[in-house]
Amino acid sequence: MKLEFWFDFASNYSYLSVMRLRQLGQTDVVWRPFLLGPIFKDAGWNNSPFVLQKDKGAYVWQDMPRQCAKYGLPWRQPSTFPRNSLLAARIGILCEEQPWMLDFCERTMLANFADDRDISNEQCMSEILSALGQDAEAILRAALADDNKARLRARTEQAKAHRIFGAPTFLVGDAMFWGNDRLDDALAMALSSPQGLRKTAG
Amino acid sequence: MKLEFWFDFASNYSYLSVMRLRQLGQTDVVWRPFLLGPIFKDAGWNNSPFVLQKDKGAYVWQDMPRQCAKYGLPWRQPSTFPRNSLLAARIGILCEEQPWMLDFCERTMLANFADDRDISNEQCMSEILSALGQDAEAILRAALADDNKARLRARTEQAKAHRIFGAPTFLVGDAMFWGNDRLDDALAMALSSPQGLRKTAG
Repeated sequence: MKLEFWFDFASNYSYLSVMRLRQLGQTDVVWRPFLLGPIFKDAGWNNSPFVLQKDKGAYVWQDMPRQCAKYGLPWRQPSTFPRNSLLAARIGILCEEQPWMLDFCERTMLANFADDRDISNEQCMSEILSALGQDAEAILRAALADDNKARLRARTEQAKAHRIFGAPTFLVGDAMFWGNDRLDDALAMALSSPQGLRKTAG
Repeated sequence: MKLEFWFDFASNYSYLSVMRLRQLGQTDVVWRPFLLGPIFKDAGWNNSPFVLQKDKGAYVWQDMPRQCAKYGLPWRQPSTFPRNSLLAARIGILCEEQPWMLDFCERTMLANFADDRDISNEQCMSEILSALGQDAEAILRAALADDNKARLRARTEQAKAHRIFGAPTFLVGDAMFWGNDRLDDALAMALSSPQGLRKTAG
């Protein structure tokens, strides 16, 4: 089976998993960008639990540099957390079938979590798309069109239907795996099942 | 440095970590049994987040059998969750310096998470202590004495002072590691530092 990769561009643990796909040679995933905000709102929270729960939040910023060091990833704590990921998610859902989706995700995550850039900024997104050789202006226009906005809203409703409560979340058939710490287990299940992930070059 | 192992006998992810110590040959830890209840209460919760957050709770019972299979551990979902761990914690803190503390922890965790027994029951605790060759009656009396009750309250205050928000939590000097998924990282830090854990027979 294919691994469905549900993530939010504002989520720091999603950053780890996006960056680890290429390291693990597993880039053939089903991309499922979505927004955590409406999920948290349904739980009665008006912000990330890493902001609302002070002790957990303080821990996360201690955990992230250690995790990034372990995986050989750059890290700078974002000066704004969580960043508004609406624009990035709209571009992501528009382009999730494109062969350059992984590159887009990596660059957007690095902008947020290594370069402390504001990914809600059209200029930032435009630079990333142009660097990938894409028509940034056309993509931004399509991303902001009503049908694409509706697509993202539907995706987030789909996340709720799956009972997704955080990100990253990996779905392999009916099985759910939550958190970057379960990426290896999720990949193992996807690879062991018929029509599993293809092993791709790292 | 030594690894301080903060845990609650009611915590299912603490079960995994307790059982993995012997597998990893790392049984020389500083035991820190405490109660999560007062921590959760301070966060505004009157129960475990696995009960209050329905979707996360449903996920946890999907995750646990997979995790137990991965580590070769038995698993039966407790018919009551979370179990009242007050008595077990009182015995734990009384006996945490004893050479049979690991055995006590393993047997109590297995009673809760493999045999679905009520660890708040004096008979259950008494059987475990007797099986370890200890004077169960004397230990239960000492565990329920006022000075020992106060010791457990002080321990839980100490957890709050450390900004511990969940279990298991591992402290290595000033560094905090949260969750069974960080046990290996915490052990690696403890072993790499001066006066680290001794490698003990597995």
